[in-house]
Amino acid sequence: MPDTSGKGCLFLLSGPSGSGKDTILKQVLARLPDLHFSISATTRPRRDPSDDEKYHFMTREEFEQGIAAGTFLEHARYVDHYYGTPAGPIEAWRAKGEDVLVECEVQGALQIMQRVPDLTSIFIMPPSLAVLRRRLQNRQTETAEQTEKRIQTALTEMRAAPHYQYLVINDALEDAVSQVCGIITAGRAAMARHIDFINEVLQSC
Amino acid sequence: MPDTSGKGCLFLLSGPSGSGKDTILKQVLARLPDLHFSISATTRPRRDPSDDEKYHFMTREEFEQGIAAGTFLEHARYVDHYYGTPAGPIEAWRAKGEDVLVECEVQGALQIMQRVPDLTSIFIMPPSLAVLRRRLQNRQTETAEQTEKRIQTALTEMRAAPHYQYLVINDALEDAVSQVCGIITAGRAAMARHIDFINEVLQSC
Repeated sequence: MPDTSGKGCLFLLSGPSGSGKDTILKQVLARLPDLHFSISATTRPRRDPSDDEKYHFMTREEFEQGIAAGTFLEHARYVDHYYGTPAGPIEAWRAKGEDVLVECEVQGALQIMQRVPDLTSIFIMPPSLAVLRRRLQNRQTETAEQTEKRIQTALTEMRAAPHYQYLVINDALEDAVSQVCGIITAGRAAMARHIDFINEVLQSC
Repeated sequence: MPDTSGKGCLFLLSGPSGSGKDTILKQVLARLPDLHFSISATTRPRRDPSDDEKYHFMTREEFEQGIAAGTFLEHARYVDHYYGTPAGPIEAWRAKGEDVLVECEVQGALQIMQRVPDLTSIFIMPPSLAVLRRRLQNRQTETAEQTEKRIQTALTEMRAAPHYQYLVINDALEDAVSQVCGIITAGRAAMARHIDFINEVLQSC
């Protein structure tokens, strides 16, 4: 067994639009205040002052230099803008024994799985396609065509779910939040993290 | 990934005397009433009517026939008596999609790990040797020599802890119970159990 004693855990959360992953994420972070949340980097323009809580804004040049230097755990380009997960802060927290939660699209998640072998990955699913459709249709800001496009993207993303270690079905929100917190609790109790502790106890006699 | 959709989980709990595993076990079963508890079989005499909650009593002949027929997930002989974990009820529950918790000594646990590849194994540790010693000394019914023997056995058992998947340090009881419940929640959310669900959702469109 690899000895990762003293190293913080990395938890990854993904799920399609309409899975409710953003609400789950907020409630998990509220319940587990010692968990760091990894902020994404992007080159897209700031739309709203609250965006700064979720994104670290970079110029295209800065982002491309970062890609070349390998400073992203994953990155992707959507509609002319880059999005990525900076590796630096995550590695610094983990080295101090602190745990980190990252939220990420499926394509990026598959990149992180390749790069971080001791990752704990969680996929959030809606309980049915009918529920997903209803949740997306309730977003009054979108056209029927946009909703249909989101459903097709969700289907593509759900086909990748078996690559994740855990599946949380978001039927009742409170249950889904408890399940994610349970998975985080289990990750923290993983034997590989406690080998030093066992050796200390055994050597104290 | 193996598809274990529809199959119940098997959770295994071990820990030395003084780790508090029996108290944790009781509280976990009270919190998770849908979890079955696997009763051990033994040839030792019944000491107390409440023993029937914990043991299935068998004659030596019945037990030896069971060993020969492979009906135990693990078995061992201590001080002239057999102890074992009957496989039948566990397999029947799991086949129905129901989850089972089994408590077992370390030697037996190592046998179950060999036989049940999708087992979730949890080792309970005291926070220090000093705490273990104090807990064992507080058992007024035992001589100093018996206590010392228990400590030596605990040390031997703790050396096997790295064979388990999870370590729960029983410092504060409530935290330890929550950790075991979290590990059980995570086991239930393991991706391998939900492949059928994902396929059903995808096929419904």
